This record gives sequence, C-alpha cells and structure tokens, in this order.
Amino acid sequence: MIKVGIVGGTGYTGVELLRLLAQHPQAELVAITSRKETGMPVAEMFPSLRGRVKLAFSDPAEAPLDRCDVVFFATPHGVAMSQARELLAAGVKVIDLAADFRLKDTAEFERWYKMPHACPDILAQAVYGLPEVNREAIRKARVIGLPGCYPTSVQLGYLPVLDQAAVAAAGGDLVERDNLIADCKSGASGAGRKAEVATLLAEAGDNFKAYSVTGHRHLPEIRQGLEAIAGKPVNLVFTPHLVPMVRGIFSTLYARLTPAGRKVDLQALYEKRFAGEPFVDVMPAGSMPETRSVRASNTARIAVHRPPGSDMLMVLVVEDNLVKGASGQGVQAMNLMFGLPEGTGLDQVPVLP
Amino acid sequence: MIKVGIVGGTGYTGVELLRLLAQHPQAELVAITSRKETGMPVAEMFPSLRGRVKLAFSDPAEAPLDRCDVVFFATPHGVAMSQARELLAAGVKVIDLAADFRLKDTAEFERWYKMPHACPDILAQAVYGLPEVNREAIRKARVIGLPGCYPTSVQLGYLPVLDQAAVAAAGGDLVERDNLIADCKSGASGAGRKAEVATLLAEAGDNFKAYSVTGHRHLPEIRQGLEAIAGKPVNLVFTPHLVPMVRGIFSTLYARLTPAGRKVDLQALYEKRFAGEPFVDVMPAGSMPETRSVRASNTARIAVHRPPGSDMLMVLVVEDNLVKGASGQGVQAMNLMFGLPEGTGLDQVPVLP
Amino acid sequence: MIKVGIVGGTGYTGVELLRLLAQHPQAELVAITSRKETGMPVAEMFPSLRGRVKLAFSDPAEAPLDRCDVVFFATPHGVAMSQARELLAAGVKVIDLAADFRLKDTAEFERWYKMPHACPDILAQAVYGLPEVNREAIRKARVIGLPGCYPTSVQLGYLPVLDQAAVAAAGGDLVERDNLIADCKSGASGAGRKAEVATLLAEAGDNFKAYSVTGHRHLPEIRQGLEAIAGKPVNLVFTPHLVPMVRGIFSTLYARLTPAGRKVDLQALYEKRFAGEPFVDVMPAGSMPETRSVRASNTARIAVHRPPGSDMLMVLVVEDNLVKGASGQGVQAMNLMFGLPEGTGLDQVPVLP
Amino acid sequence: MIKVGIVGGTGYTGVELLRLLAQHPQAELVAITSRKETGMPVAEMFPSLRGRVKLAFSDPAEAPLDRCDVVFFATPHGVAMSQARELLAAGVKVIDLAADFRLKDTAEFERWYKMPHACPDILAQAVYGLPEVNREAIRKARVIGLPGCYPTSVQLGYLPVLDQAAVAAAGGDLVERDNLIADCKSGASGAGRKAEVATLLAEAGDNFKAYSVTGHRHLPEIRQGLEAIAGKPVNLVFTPHLVPMVRGIFSTLYARLTPAGRKVDLQALYEKRFAGEPFVDVMPAGSMPETRSVRASNTARIAVHRPPGSDMLMVLVVEDNLVKGASGQGVQAMNLMFGLPEGTGLDQVPVLP
Repeated sequence: MIKVGIVGGTGYTGVELLRLLAQHPQAELVAITSRKETGMPVAEMFPSLRGRVKLAFSDPAEAPLDRCDVVFFATPHGVAMSQARELLAAGVKVIDLAADFRLKDTAEFERWYKMPHACPDILAQAVYGLPEVNREAIRKARVIGLPGCYPTSVQLGYLPVLDQAAVAAAGGDLVERDNLIADCKSGASGAGRKAEVATLLAEAGDNFKAYSVTGHRHLPEIRQGLEAIAGKPVNLVFTPHLVPMVRGIFSTLYARLTPAGRKVDLQALYEKRFAGEPFVDVMPAGSMPETRSVRASNTARIAVHRPPGSDMLMVLVVEDNLVKGASGQGVQAMNLMFGLPEGTGLDQVPVLP
Repeated sequence: MIKVGIVGGTGYTGVELLRLLAQHPQAELVAITSRKETGMPVAEMFPSLRGRVKLAFSDPAEAPLDRCDVVFFATPHGVAMSQARELLAAGVKVIDLAADFRLKDTAEFERWYKMPHACPDILAQAVYGLPEVNREAIRKARVIGLPGCYPTSVQLGYLPVLDQAAVAAAGGDLVERDNLIADCKSGASGAGRKAEVATLLAEAGDNFKAYSVTGHRHLPEIRQGLEAIAGKPVNLVFTPHLVPMVRGIFSTLYARLTPAGRKVDLQALYEKRFAGEPFVDVMPAGSMPETRSVRASNTARIAVHRPPGSDMLMVLVVEDNLVKGASGQGVQAMNLMFGLPEGTGLDQVPVLP
Repeated sequence: MIKVGIVGGTGYTGVELLRLLAQHPQAELVAITSRKETGMPVAEMFPSLRGRVKLAFSDPAEAPLDRCDVVFFATPHGVAMSQARELLAAGVKVIDLAADFRLKDTAEFERWYKMPHACPDILAQAVYGLPEVNREAIRKARVIGLPGCYPTSVQLGYLPVLDQAAVAAAGGDLVERDNLIADCKSGASGAGRKAEVATLLAEAGDNFKAYSVTGHRHLPEIRQGLEAIAGKPVNLVFTPHLVPMVRGIFSTLYARLTPAGRKVDLQALYEKRFAGEPFVDVMPAGSMPETRSVRASNTARIAVHRPPGSDMLMVLVVEDNLVKGASGQGVQAMNLMFGLPEGTGLDQVPVLP
Repeated sequence: MIKVGIVGGTGYTGVELLRLLAQHPQAELVAITSRKETGMPVAEMFPSLRGRVKLAFSDPAEAPLDRCDVVFFATPHGVAMSQARELLAAGVKVIDLAADFRLKDTAEFERWYKMPHACPDILAQAVYGLPEVNREAIRKARVIGLPGCYPTSVQLGYLPVLDQAAVAAAGGDLVERDNLIADCKSGASGAGRKAEVATLLAEAGDNFKAYSVTGHRHLPEIRQGLEAIAGKPVNLVFTPHLVPMVRGIFSTLYARLTPAGRKVDLQALYEKRFAGEPFVDVMPAGSMPETRSVRASNTARIAVHRPPGSDMLMVLVVEDNLVKGASGQGVQAMNLMFGLPEGTGLDQVPVLP
C-alpha cells in the first residue's frame, strides 16, 4: 500500500482526491491537513465521505507527512514549494496540484503569481505531470507539477498536430503555430471552494461570461507546454469563460491548417496519436462531445472537425476539471511513479445524466 | 417627484430597488450610499443599469439623505435603527428592508438578531409593511418595517383562513392554529450578495437542501404576523430550503381543517379576500403556480388545494423574493405613503421563460 | 457471473443500470433491448459508456433474454407484466423498475395506471423490493417490483416510527398515523428521458413548482408500504415538487408526535433501526443532508429533527433518485437474490461537488 | 394605436412578443392564433400574463388578421411565406421571426431549409430587419425578415470593422475577412418550446456542448449579412454551443487584424459606430459583459479586446436571444415601420440578478 498524505484537503481538488483515493485499492490515506479545520473529521465537512474516510484534518505542523510515500498539495499557489525540500529529504515524493512546479521559467512564474520562487533547484528537476506527453519522466520523478485544468485540455487537443513526429512526416507544420485560438469554457468548481461574490449561484447561475481575457495564468503554462510539444515557438489566444454548471471543461480549439495540414487525414492522425492512451478517447468523425460524458471520470474525449468551407481545424475537448484536470491526473501520476498499472483506482464510469 | 435615497445599495435588494425606481415615473433617485464603494458609478458595479442610473455610490456620512422624502435601507440588520431618528427628525420617511422594525417585541428581536434594539420608541410607531394587511396604517406611516421574503408569502397564504372576519362568519376556527406547517423553498438570491461558500454555484448548484430548520429568524416574524391576523395564538413549523435557482420563493403551506373549515368553500374565500388586491392573484381551482410566473414582478400568485383523502388545506404561494418579497413591496409601500396609485412603477410583466 | 438482460435501456434508469453493471464484478451484461434503437451500439447513444459497454441494442423479439439469469425491465409501465410469465417459465428472475409489480391491489393498479393487470397470479408472488423492509423475501423472490423513487425515500423516512416493534415498545403509536405529510422534491431526471415540454431546461430551469398535487401515482404505493410497515391504516398528504437539478430527491417528512412519541429518543430510535443497514445513513443529531451528498451513490441519508416549539417530528431524507431510488436498488435486490454480498458493485463514493 | 396580430403565439418568441406588446403604449393586440390551442385563453397557457393579456388563441382560419396593421409570425419556418401575399394585399405589414425572408438567395434558402421558397417576389422586396444596418429601409418596408438570434449578435459585433466607411478611412481592410471565427453560446430557450430530448433539463442541465458544428442554418445568414456590410466576400467559422441557462447569447468573435487594422483605435471605432444607437452599448475598454446584464431587455452590450501578445481582435457580444435576438427586435422594427420613436415599449431595465 502506498502511504498518502494530503496537504490542504478542504477545497474541491482535495475532496476529489479523497473520493478517488477512498476507492483506490493500493493507496492508504495516512494524513490530511488543514490549518483552519484541525480536529474536524473529514466526513463532517464532506458528508459524501461518511463511512468512507475516517480521518480528521490534522495540524500541518503535526501531521506525519514525512512518513508518507507521497504527499499531494491541494493548496493555494506557494505552499508546495515551501515544504517540498523537507519532504524530498525525507524520501517523500511530491505531487503539487497548484502552480508551483509548472512553469520552468522562474521569471515567468514570478510575473504571473506575484511571488518569488522558493526553490528553483527543485523546480529544475520537477516533471510536468501530463502523462500523454511525459509518461516516462513521470515514472522516475520525485516532484510533479500537475497541469492546470485548462492547460490539460488545450494541450491534449493540440498535441497530435503540433507533435514533432507528425510534422516531420508531413514535411512541415500542419497548422499555423502563431495563430491558435483556445476558446475554453469551465464549470464553477474551477474557481475553487472560496467565499467569493463572483461565483455565487445568484451571480453565476443562469448567466454566461468570459473572464481574465486580458491575461489568465494558464496562458504561459499552455504556451510552454505547446512549445515543448512542437519544439518551436507557438502563440495562442486563450479565452476562458464561466459556465453555469458545477464540473466540466469544454475547449473549442481553432487552428488554421497549412497546405501540408490540409492534406493530412486528421481523424486518423488523432486516433493514432492517442491509440493506447487509457484516458484519452478520440471520438468517431462527426461526434459532438459533451462535458457530462466524462463527469466524475478521468477520461478526456476529443472530436476533430473541419468546419465547412474553411481552412480551419477545430478540435473539441471535454474533461472533468476536477478529475483529468486535477485530482484524477494526480492519481494517474502517482500510479506511474509507484509502478502500478496507470489506471488503478481510476475506473469510475462517467455519471450521466 | 418623490426624492429617494438608498442606504447600502450594493446588495440584491439594492440593485432591485434601483431597477424598479429607474422605471418609476414619480421617483427621483437622489443618493445611494455605500461605505466600501464610495465614488464608484452604480452602473459600473451593475452594468444592467448602464444608461439608466447615472448616480455614483456616495459616502454615507456625506450623502444628502436628510433632503430626501424617503430613504430605503437595503442594509444588514441594525443599520436602519441607528440612523432612523435623525432622518425622521429631518422629516424623512424611512423604509427598512432589513429586520430592525419588524418584530414588535424587543426581547424577541434581541434573541434572534443578537443585538439590543437601538430605538424602541421608534419601533413602537413603525408599521409592518404588508399592504394586504396594513394598507391604511402604511399610508400614514413614517417608518416601515418591510416584511421578510418568506414571511410575505406565508402570511399571504394563510391570511384568508386566519382572518378574523372569516372565522367569525364560519362560527369558529377554520384550521387548527397550533399545527401549521410552512415548507418553503427559496432561490439563492435570498441569501444576499455576500461572499460565502454555502451559496457558491459549485455548492448550491445541482443540489437541494433544507437549512436553519432548528430556528430561522423569519419564524418569530411569521408567528407575530399570523397572530396579528388571527387575533389569537398561532403555532407553526417553518422549514426553509435552498433551491438551485436565482430568484423566487415557493411556499407549500399546510393546515388541518376543522369541521367548520371543511364546510367552507375555500376557493371562494380566497378569491373574495384578495378581490381588488393589485398584487395578489388567486389562481383558478386546480392550478399549479410556478416561481417563473412571477419572476421580476411584484405579483404573488396563490393556489388553494384540498389534497385527496385528507382533512388538509394546502396553499401554494409563489413570489419573487426580491420584488414582492422585498424591493417591490418597498415601492408599493412608498406609493401608499405618498398618496400615489399603489401600483405606480410596478407594472412589469413577469419574465417567462 | 450472473447473466443479465435489460429490456428498454434507453431511458435514465436504463443507462444508470448500465453504469452500475459495468462496474459490477459478478454481473455480465448479455443483452439490452430497444425496439426503436435496434442495432445501435449502446455507447453511441450514451458516450459516457464508450469503452465500458460493448453491446448494441437488440430487437426485443430476438434478444436471448431467456438465457439470462435475471432480466431488468427499465420500461414504461405495462411492459414487464406482459413478458414476465415467459421469462419465469424459462427460469429467469425478473426485476421491474416500473410499477407493474408494486401495488398488491389490482383494482388500485388499474385505477392509477389505466390498464388491467396482465398477471395477477404473478403479482401475488412478487416481492416489493425495499431491502430495509423485505430483505429476506427478496432473497427468495423470483419477481421483484422495485419501489418508486419517491416511495423509497418516504418509506425509509417513516419506517422507524411506524415500525411495529417500536410502537409495541412505546406502548402505542409514536405519531398520528392519519396526519402524515410528505413534502418531496425531485430533480428532473425523475420525469424520465422523454420528449416533453414541461421538463425542458427552458421551462424547468431557474424555476420551482409543485405538480400532481391532486393525486400522484406514488401515493397509493407509499400508503401501501407504510401500512405494511405499521400493520394499521395510514393516511398521508404527498406533494411532489420539481427542482431545477438533474438528480436527487429530498423528502421533508412531517408527523405529529403522540404523547408516547414525545417521550422517545427519536435519534436513538432511527440509529438503532438502521444499524447495520449498508445503504441507510442516519446522520448525527442536528444534521442537514443535501442531495449532492449521495449523488451517484446508493446511499440514502436521513436526519431526524424536532422543530422548535412544536409537537412535530421532521425527517429529512436524501437519495439519488436514479440509484437508491431505482437502478442501484435494483442491483441491491439482484445481489440479494443471487446470494452475493448486498453491496457488491455498489461502492461508488458520492460525487461532490 | 397599432393593431397587431400574432400568428403562432405558443412558443418562446410568441410569449415574449406578448410580454413586450402588453407593455407597449401604442400597440393593441387584436388576434393571436394557434391551431392546436384554439379557444384557450393565452393567460391559461402562460400564467405570467394573467391580468395582462385577455385574448384567447384563435383559429388561424378565422382570426381577423387582415384587419391588423401588422402581423408577426412567430411560427416555424415556412408559414409566413405561405400567408404573406394575402396579408400584404389587404394592406397588412408582415414581420417574420422565422427564416422565410432572411436569405436573399432562394437556392440557399432551399438548401438549408429543405423547402422551396413560396414567394420569391415578396422575398425580393423584404427588408432584413437589423436596424443598426438597415434602419431607413425598415421604415419603408412592408415585409421584414427579422435576423436570427445568433446572426444579430455576430453582425453587430463585426459591423464596425467590416463597415465600408471604416475600411475606406483606414485605406484597406481592418481584419482578414476570410478568417473570422464566431464562437457563440446560447441558452436553451434558443431551441424553442418544442418537446425534445436534447434540451430536457436532465440532458442540457449541468452540461455544456457544441452542436451543429458541421453546418448551422444561421451560417449562410451571417455570411450574407457580413458581406452586405463589407461589400466584399467574407468567410467565417461559426460554432454554436448550448449553455445550461434559459436566456442569453454570448458571442466571442475573433478576427485577425491586418497591419492597417492594428493601427486603428478599435475602442473608439466601436464607440463611434454605435453612438446614438439606442440598443447597442459599447462598454468601456477592458469590460467583460455577461448575459444577465441584458436579461429581458432589448440591449446588446459589446466589449472590444486585443488579446495580449497577438494580432487578434476579440469582440464580446451579449444579447437576450428572445429580445434583441427576436421579439424585441421585432417591436423595434415595428416602431420604425409605424413612425414611432424607436424605443417605444422597449425601456425594460435588465433583470439582474
């Protein structure tokens, strides 16, 4: 059994980790911390876990995190980097669901997150936890920076057409790399379990809006990821929107096809690239994915379209932002790091309706 | 033109007052205060009012409230009673949308609102602003304590069967007064525009729950109101629930009919009692009201039922909690206080769908 | 492995059966029929099942249902009773999710469902599939009439206070049996996957209403169930409401306590009655259940309250209408009928948020 | 008073017309037809109109439509063109909310709507009812083809940068005309009040999806409108999505700026183009419109953005699909046709929250 600790389990990624780990046959939850809720049984805060999680929240200072095999940080940005060194020294692996180990460029990190990076050396060895791109590196990693929810969907959606092998096979770029548009829509759980006016039901319910269009923190992360995939500069417009629903991300991705790209069988390209991927489902040509088709599961579904009368590629990607976009991907990474079958504990069938 | 001031206009009852007053032909908005947002144009916070409300929020200390004819308090409990004396001395009428002037018994007020009452003498002359019960008193009032949203619907629903004239005509009580049950359901705007976890879309969306069943502040207000109507003691169970919608209250009211009550034509009783009421619509026998049928309007709709095979009376009442349950009723009271036709500025047709 | 057939798998209880059976370690899905969709892969209609259910819908006339061990009917009322005899003759057990085998009185069935009963002899041996009441009978049953969604929640909620042993222990009725009120609220999936105007998102969204208050088909079923529990006549008012959410039932149950009932420790009574029940969770005193705390799981949660200043008992019950209120309860019954541990394949943790 | 008739008033654009006309000081509703509901009082089907609309639905064959000044068709495609000739001959003006008089090319009409056009001669004189583009022609028109809901928002959003005067002033195209992307999101009322599975609350609630990406009927209409504005060919990708809300359209419009376009002050361009427009609100730079800010009102709000680090123009447009996207625009056109102030009866303040 893998001994697991969770730092900061009172948010949505925290309770989702608990849901998944409670069903994981090889994981044993050893400690979960919360400064504010020390002593409160987890199942009192989240009655959905009554009878399934017996632990109480413990004081971060006293929790036996150093006796865990792996610790998840489901905390605000900045927490994981302040505690990682000590845990690593104790031989504990670290998986951060926040942004501390995502951006490789510390200047970029500081610009977007308004804090200096506490441990650039550890960041240097951290692996970006997107298995479809970095599977082998994740297996060997000691520190994982898990992708953000939007970045997961956008990178998966563009991966096959930016992939260097595909580009080489086609004899050149398949899409115009400087002209990508990711029009993304997220449910309100993406904003976290924080007291805020903007995400009240009476504000966000029966309503639709864009937000952060002048610059969202996931933009540099997406660009870094796409450039790593492409091996070349990539530019994109990223527009997040808030949908009046609880879970789910829907990304509508546009890219102008090059003459080379127009010759490629894109459906086949996507199917081939993701063949064998346990958690990426390329739907048949003409399909229309919907977010509920992946609700509460670790699967991302992708449909590839060529809008009529245009040179565009349009890719539709759905994921559950709390599972493949966060906690499920964390468990997937953990499985890889500990040599388990990648899908262990992640076989939940999506909940529809 | 009536010169109107609003204290605390950044919440839902505040913005609803602004919506209604912007369409009121005899009201002129003179000042709106907010300590936090001083200087911000109202239409910047609420873009729905762009081009319709030109005012900016002003500092409560500097706003010319004493030059108004009437001041609405759309504030937390406790504010109106601290400012009412000064305004009244300046000849300004006061309409409080919070609870300061609702409960006649100051001990009861202190028990439920955890603060001493600042001006029992003013409370003594305040009128409870439910026009269907207190119309004449409202016309002459200087201070109005507007009913809460739930209490409005529950009192309207029970009014015809507790009415002393109806009881006298029937020769005795129509319903068992000690055994009333008000099972009420409210949209999330009823919780106010406050940063809170419990009313986030990701908490309250796609979910249903009861709350405050061990004692809600509207219980003593409802009991006081029903006892005033009946002229006798009344006891009730009041169960509020939170519905994943923005606006609307639905009250399902139960009362056990006495033998005398079983002989009465209840449909006729309700129709007669509310005949001529501009904002209470008794629907035809067998009707099923729904909250959207009154959305954004000042109308309450009522349907009277006798559940099959029982001795029960069931009354279904719908209202928009922000209009008839708050700001619309406030404008209705203002109209009465200033000798205008009662429905002035309140002729909005409900928005359906 | 239990060979399972499903008749009529294109509705919500059908797809939910598929979700649960796809995760059931001892069940093998052999056939699923749909007259309309013959030939269509199940996962094409329900992409949530891609990679999890390989079957296509087959023609009811050709499906090898007689080679199954058990057949679920997720069909409109009237279908199961027309096919049960043949299946039983072939040694196949039958679990009906519709109403054909619920009401013991065929006259009552005909009155509410407007059709004659096709097989009163089979009805006579059918067992009402509520494990918390009929566990032993279910184990031996060949035909199960599964309870409706509302009836499950209402019967579980009243069970401890109507229970004959509890009444005997208290020396008399605990509650007034002729005066029960079940004020129930359901998500829209309860109306089924049928093209109808009334449950369109644009009709039922951001809206709340009661329906069928003049007589709902679940009323006679609830009454029959409560009378079986009490061994005496029971009368109740049952008021269903439609909540703008997808899944979930919330039942607010009222009962006037007798003097004997007022002396009983009701919290202890409920805890004792459901001790050992795998799918009924009596929450601690003072709790407020919410529907999402059981979303997508087979658990019902119950909280027991005494409203302040009254003689009432109030019981709050939440369940997922498609799981404990339908398909999950069906799998639970199947497990009992085939001698499996009762919770096999039903250990999904509720999905929150 | 303008005598108004409505053909087919049982859908959402019909009831919205009724809401607006009931508040219109110069319109008198003379007849409303429905084949199916003949004889039913309008307010029985739509209780929101109780006390506001006294008419009953009348038989289309018997309704005195020829005595109206104007008849609105709130019908499925194909109805208006079959009745227009007779009405015009009687001197009645016609405003069609469906597609019969939108597409100037009858071959295009037949391709997308699968029916021959019944009256190409009338189509030839019909005016496309977008006042911001065709105001003068609307004033003189006898037949109006009202724009679709999506096309209204997309055309308003691109109007200033495709406008021929603006292009001339800049010395060339401001945006790449062949590369436009309209990523549009609509509430469920856009699908109409039709019994359908896909828009049930249990299907579309708590869910997000794209639809008709392989070709939506509004695509040729948008293209025709944009080409009329630009006076040149225009190509675009149009992606409609379904949002789990009742009302509202949000269009996120992308266009690659040309070198000439990059030099233009786009905020000023938009403000100038729509200066004086009573129902188009260009928000201040940096604004984020949301659909609720125009709920139940005839206003469209527009925000102009330059995504960081790109050559793109991004325009965000919100409208209420049933008002500016349909019935409100119809009343606006009627006002123009009858020489009334354009905003008569259209001064509803948006309902927020």
